[in-house]
Amino acid sequence: MANIQKVQDFLVEHSIDAALITNPDNIFYLTDFRSDPHERLLGVVVFKEKDPFIICPAMEVADVKAIGWNYDIIGYKDTDNAFAFLEQAITERISSFLLLAIEKQHLTVDRFEILQSRFPSLQFANLDEKLASCRLVKNEIELEHLRKAAELADYAIEVGCNEIAEGKTELEIVQAVETAVKQKGAEKMSFDTIIVSGTKTASPHGIPGERKIEKGDFILFDLGVVYKGYCSDITRTVSFGEPSEEKRKIYETVKKAQQAAIDVVRPGTLAKEVDLAARSVIEEAGYGELFPHRIGHGLGISVHEYPSLTGTNDMPLEKGMVFTIEPGIYDPSITGVRIEDDLYVTEDGVEVLTKFPKDLKVIG
Amino acid sequence: MANIQKVQDFLVEHSIDAALITNPDNIFYLTDFRSDPHERLLGVVVFKEKDPFIICPAMEVADVKAIGWNYDIIGYKDTDNAFAFLEQAITERISSFLLLAIEKQHLTVDRFEILQSRFPSLQFANLDEKLASCRLVKNEIELEHLRKAAELADYAIEVGCNEIAEGKTELEIVQAVETAVKQKGAEKMSFDTIIVSGTKTASPHGIPGERKIEKGDFILFDLGVVYKGYCSDITRTVSFGEPSEEKRKIYETVKKAQQAAIDVVRPGTLAKEVDLAARSVIEEAGYGELFPHRIGHGLGISVHEYPSLTGTNDMPLEKGMVFTIEPGIYDPSITGVRIEDDLYVTEDGVEVLTKFPKDLKVIG
Repeated sequence: MANIQKVQDFLVEHSIDAALITNPDNIFYLTDFRSDPHERLLGVVVFKEKDPFIICPAMEVADVKAIGWNYDIIGYKDTDNAFAFLEQAITERISSFLLLAIEKQHLTVDRFEILQSRFPSLQFANLDEKLASCRLVKNEIELEHLRKAAELADYAIEVGCNEIAEGKTELEIVQAVETAVKQKGAEKMSFDTIIVSGTKTASPHGIPGERKIEKGDFILFDLGVVYKGYCSDITRTVSFGEPSEEKRKIYETVKKAQQAAIDVVRPGTLAKEVDLAARSVIEEAGYGELFPHRIGHGLGISVHEYPSLTGTNDMPLEKGMVFTIEPGIYDPSITGVRIEDDLYVTEDGVEVLTKFPKDLKVIG
Repeated sequence: MANIQKVQDFLVEHSIDAALITNPDNIFYLTDFRSDPHERLLGVVVFKEKDPFIICPAMEVADVKAIGWNYDIIGYKDTDNAFAFLEQAITERISSFLLLAIEKQHLTVDRFEILQSRFPSLQFANLDEKLASCRLVKNEIELEHLRKAAELADYAIEVGCNEIAEGKTELEIVQAVETAVKQKGAEKMSFDTIIVSGTKTASPHGIPGERKIEKGDFILFDLGVVYKGYCSDITRTVSFGEPSEEKRKIYETVKKAQQAAIDVVRPGTLAKEVDLAARSVIEEAGYGELFPHRIGHGLGISVHEYPSLTGTNDMPLEKGMVFTIEPGIYDPSITGVRIEDDLYVTEDGVEVLTKFPKDLKVIG
């Protein structure tokens, strides 16, 4: 429970009485307990000076014990008032309760109002930045999981390419890919797989459907898997049949932009410099207006986490950060192209975790 | 956009200037636009007297147009301040902005604080109950989608039963089932599929793993699919090999409890009466302590929505409601058993949407 200690240190440093953590990804980071509580309350309460406890539905108490949680577990039934149990468990443990750290990016207004009404004089501090900064730099074990997740993502692209054939639907390829990676050890996909074809590639968040792929299409794969709780996220765009000159130019521009961004990644580079390295290549080629999103996002327990690599983020990169680099050009009348890798910042440069080749693959 | 009109009527009735809707399931209900925005802002703003607008990432503007949205779309880039765009779009449209309806069960504290700082004199009303009550009663089109989702869930159980064989792992069966239902038209699973065996069935939220199934196991399937945006959720427990007398007794008790609950469902029955009908059967059989959760939950666009069928909910059932009935008995030293169906409340009774047989199935 070394990560709980980090929260406790934060509470001591800022004289905060306790912290309530309810974001399931943060709970997994702190405790190794993974669960989607839906509308039910699942929380870890960490104190400045006392042992932490977990509050969870009664039916999950045994699951919490099974992951090796050695502290108290407060289980409540569906007919119980979970917040009454929470209040009692806190007040039993500490006499002075003036300042509570919460995850403002996760806690909802209704739960916030319940806390306010149960503890009328309570003040609130924000735990988001602390937890984000803890999770920002990955350790060796996390890196191993991320490497394996990336390897499975590479394999998924390979399977997807082998599935391409005249008349197959996008959804048929999705099914083949997802089945194959799960058979290889992926726990699940890290988000809804995007496999789109033809001009549907021009939507960065396209949804696979019944469209049958045909010769002349670009086909875009954007997918990732979860391995031991850690996510990968890869994009490749391939050509089914010989591409037009314009399509090839778009592809080569994205590829060059992606490499330009990778080339600047090392400790000390600012996040915005990564974005701008790719963006300037795309702008110089005359496609600037067709690249409407940031260059990338952090990756770990969540498929989107910090750092956010936008053109305005002044955060310097550090050894241990893991994030995507994924420039794209989206022309609704021609095609969309995106190329995305997962990167780990090393002592003096970068390790690219996803390794599927990026030369334009022409199939069939 | 008939559902947007319901929100507008609510605003008129309560003299609320506008509503900000950011829950993706509610956005789908109101607009047919489906997207997971992750950390980005995606919102529908409905006004008392003006036309609504959608605010979304620039890269999704074309996707919003494609679903037939005829009103304004405010697209912002990743380097823009989305809330500055939101503020401007609201103040351009209305001069008096005193009261905003929000989804308190979805809006996070950080976004709430941003709204408070941008509109210092703004007051907030809660839209949760209104949207929940709109979604509570399903119309004919929704019912058709739910019927189809339930049919696919039945098929998944059938596939799962056919996959059972000595030495297969839980995860192998998960893969076979998910592949099969997607090939039959399921868009995706409505939650992470649970297929667990042996005493792992005693955890209501067990996680499938590498455990190999063996003769003598009970195997519990809890899964659902999404069809046209609507969820199903079914549980069946089957026996691999002849069960012991105690296991059979547990199974028959759950089956009898489930039927007792189904038998009381009709308009006017209170939600708690459904829970108590099942619970009293389980208590009479001496297993009361081993049934630690409510009898069921509403089902629709979300896999958990209203009504919540707990032993303390006084809400009368109404024609058009759709929910699960899923009693269980969980004995860690023997087995867990749960049986779950999806139900639709008709004019004078109930239609059970999931139809896979419930007599104890003994395989092999």
